[in-house]
Amino acid sequence: MLTLYNFHASSTSYRTRIVLNYKNIPYEYISVRLDKAEHLGRAYGEINPMRGVPTLDTGDARLYQSSAIIEYLEEVYPDPPMLPNDPLGRAHVRAIAAIVGSDMHPVNNLRIRNMLRDAYKQDADGVNTWIHLWNRQGFEAIEAMLRSDKARKPGFCYGSSATIADAYLVSHVFSAVRFKTDMTPFPLIRTVVENCERIEAFAKAHPSRQPDAAQ
Amino acid sequence: MLTLYNFHASSTSYRTRIVLNYKNIPYEYISVRLDKAEHLGRAYGEINPMRGVPTLDTGDARLYQSSAIIEYLEEVYPDPPMLPNDPLGRAHVRAIAAIVGSDMHPVNNLRIRNMLRDAYKQDADGVNTWIHLWNRQGFEAIEAMLRSDKARKPGFCYGSSATIADAYLVSHVFSAVRFKTDMTPFPLIRTVVENCERIEAFAKAHPSRQPDAAQ
Repeated sequence: MLTLYNFHASSTSYRTRIVLNYKNIPYEYISVRLDKAEHLGRAYGEINPMRGVPTLDTGDARLYQSSAIIEYLEEVYPDPPMLPNDPLGRAHVRAIAAIVGSDMHPVNNLRIRNMLRDAYKQDADGVNTWIHLWNRQGFEAIEAMLRSDKARKPGFCYGSSATIADAYLVSHVFSAVRFKTDMTPFPLIRTVVENCERIEAFAKAHPSRQPDAAQ
Repeated sequence: MLTLYNFHASSTSYRTRIVLNYKNIPYEYISVRLDKAEHLGRAYGEINPMRGVPTLDTGDARLYQSSAIIEYLEEVYPDPPMLPNDPLGRAHVRAIAAIVGSDMHPVNNLRIRNMLRDAYKQDADGVNTWIHLWNRQGFEAIEAMLRSDKARKPGFCYGSSATIADAYLVSHVFSAVRFKTDMTPFPLIRTVVENCERIEAFAKAHPSRQPDAAQ
């Protein structure tokens, strides 16, 4: 049995839960309460040296970084696939995922928001200005990629079924909406998210449905 | 013939050049001068919607995001490999790469440094404080992963030959040293970097040896 150390509201956790659910992989849920700084304590530091969530414990090894965990799941549990068969398609899907995973999420992460507040004395509006700027740049790029992909069905980032790009996008849009980033300029992204959120594997992964969600 | 849109001093470009060289893949070098903001112009925006470097043009498609490009190169040019054969080993190597590619590089990127300077009025010392903080957290995690991996040879991040983790680490340490992050606390990382920099594929990818390097 796999064990996932994660937190309900973390978008890197959310994207990983989507992939686990989509592939029908059972796992034990262990909550790492970021809101109580549990990830900064000694105990979690011995589980994950970067102190990030998620960590996937396979029984044989602890795996770090959601992007590496998701590639591992795709390799070991290939059915149903969440990457296309052809290398160019895979590169396209991974690029959308990486815009979220490298250009959007890390710069708006909890540790960065805390730093803006503590070191640069930014109030909530100041922090939100920062968040919206990087979200907007990333969403504009993804919207353009969706627009120029003529072979795509409207409910998905690529092709006609869910890929890891949808897992990244759905979980990041959840976070962006929470911080009130205006999604109006991104109709193609909104259609993808609305469609994918109706898929049971995505819905079951939603933060509000996790055992450590605020009651 | 592949075409790589890139910039000599960009660490995401540098890591991609290392992989291209290591796999003996010829490519045309097209310079996108980040120091002259060429990536923000209309022409490059039509090549890459996120306006990042590198972009790899395969002739059939333009590929974005170095992590996606590197996975593409590994799939299409598997020999010599830069990922282990087994899924757990691959996940470990990808995790080291992702600590650099998601937790370290993006938060110290040019657009972020410009924002700290312009919006938060940080001088060079202020910007460097920010850079060193995230570099230190990431290097500490990677140093711990290298230390606990008893099967590793000292000259590499994993096993006894170069992987994508080495490509990410060498290129990021170049950037960290340029910003004067203190590498003294990370002897295992320094040994990996010193060893890999002597490999011709890595040496040829060094920023100082590119056609757009400052003369």
